[in-house]
Amino acid sequence: MKVLVIGASGTIGRAVAAELAPRHTIVTAGRSSGDFRVDVTDLASVQRLFRETGPLDAVIATTGSLHFGPLGEFTPEQYAIGLNDKLMGQVNLVIAGQHVLNDGGSFTLTSGIVSDEPIRYGSSASMVNAAIEGFVRGAAIELPRGLRINVVSPNVLVESLDGYGPYFRGFEAVPAARVALAYSKSVEGLQTGRVYPVH
Amino acid sequence: MKVLVIGASGTIGRAVAAELAPRHTIVTAGRSSGDFRVDVTDLASVQRLFRETGPLDAVIATTGSLHFGPLGEFTPEQYAIGLNDKLMGQVNLVIAGQHVLNDGGSFTLTSGIVSDEPIRYGSSASMVNAAIEGFVRGAAIELPRGLRINVVSPNVLVESLDGYGPYFRGFEAVPAARVALAYSKSVEGLQTGRVYPVH
Ligand SMILES: NC(=O)c1ccc[n+]([C@@H]2O[C@H](COP(=O)([O-])OP(=O)(O)OC[C@H]3O[C@@H](n4cnc5c(N)ncnc54)[C@H](OP(=O)(O)O)[C@@H]3O)[C@@H](O)[C@H]2O)c1
Ligand SMILES: NC(=O)c1ccc[n+]([C@@H]2O[C@H](COP(=O)([O-])OP(=O)(O)OC[C@H]3O[C@@H](n4cnc5c(N)ncnc54)[C@H](OP(=O)(O)O)[C@@H]3O)[C@@H](O)[C@H]2O)c1
Repeated sequence: MKVLVIGASGTIGRAVAAELAPRHTIVTAGRSSGDFRVDVTDLASVQRLFRETGPLDAVIATTGSLHFGPLGEFTPEQYAIGLNDKLMGQVNLVIAGQHVLNDGGSFTLTSGIVSDEPIRYGSSASMVNAAIEGFVRGAAIELPRGLRINVVSPNVLVESLDGYGPYFRGFEAVPAARVALAYSKSVEGLQTGRVYPVH
Repeated sequence: MKVLVIGASGTIGRAVAAELAPRHTIVTAGRSSGDFRVDVTDLASVQRLFRETGPLDAVIATTGSLHFGPLGEFTPEQYAIGLNDKLMGQVNLVIAGQHVLNDGGSFTLTSGIVSDEPIRYGSSASMVNAAIEGFVRGAAIELPRGLRINVVSPNVLVESLDGYGPYFRGFEAVPAARVALAYSKSVEGLQTGRVYPVH
């Protein structure tokens, strides 16, 4: 399969590319890294990306930013960061990609454990991760031509504990290589509309 | 208790006000109806509302619009309708209300069954309803002073079948009066961070 990984230079994306590379042709994209340049928050940029890559069998997104902060100080503009970036950035890939993926192709998006298991400062993370999972359930039943869509919900990564550890005390951190298996299950399996937790 | 119902002129809001009125003081608000005028999509308007109502023990939101349409034709702007209105409209009530509700007070928001059970044309509905439920899980653990927050996820209403029936074939429609009980459970109970499905 020809598999596009958007965010392949990141902590999760690197592990996903490493897991799939022995069996598939991997092409990569990022805002400032990868075989192709794209800003997923800009639909026109995403449409250009798909013209440049040519036909694809799978699109994997391991991107997405959002704001963390105390609920008591959160502003609508801070919630908009995650809605525009982590949520709509990944949704833009589906808006554009559904028209160009090969029959039977798949989308695999990324949410996160905070959808189910809230953390201090995480009201936007819970909102945005749950929104991605809801979108995946909704989109799965409407995709044409046997296209599929799933989402991986990772726990905090072992590799990210330096930065995120203080917010995830008591969470059982998972290695990136284990998280990458869930992307393989989505791309190389046949299921659709699924949330794959790696908790 | 003094309970503010935003959207009290609507199908669900009327039933909620009727359920709670025998035991509580109900004040109502809407864009063009109710004791107070508010546009929940505008945080400044919501802040003004809370100055006008004075102290409250519960805030109930039975409002919210979003776009329905085929996944193949959905645009980012159409997803933004539901994110700005049904999602952020209700979130704005929490952003502002957390600073003014009486100790131990509660928020009760409204999502919908399409969060869990997708329908044709419903990719935004699944996204937005799930986002509200995620936000509620996230906000619940950070609210101060014993404030609580829950969300009611109604099935399609018997009273709304004329309009929505064709999209909900096979769904067991629920009467508004039964949906209203879940709002009572949220306001008059002690739980927080819960999704109350009325499916
Ligand atoms: N790390 C964790 O512990 C963890 C746990 C659960 C969930 N997650 C989620 O998993 C996703 C990836 O996390 P990560 O830690 O692997 O992130 P990361 O190391 O920061 O990598 C992010 C990747 O996304 C690319 N990117 C960022 N913005 C982009 C944009 N607008 N358009 C295109 N590409 C963009 C970056 O490439 P450029 O720099 O070239 O743009 C980079 O390759 C995030 O959504 C995160 O919330 C992470
Ligand atoms: N009806 C169903 O079958 C069903 C099922 C599941 C979930 N839901 C959800 O439940 C919620 C209410 O549904 P409904 O059928 O009861 O709606 P509805 O009959 O259309 O009533 C909506 C209410 O919200 C108020 N409103 C609308 N926009 C507002 C704004 N920007 N600011 C303040 N108030 C506003 C309206 O008052 P004004 O006209 O005065 O503005 C009205 O009182 C929606 O989120 C809907 O998605 C409904």
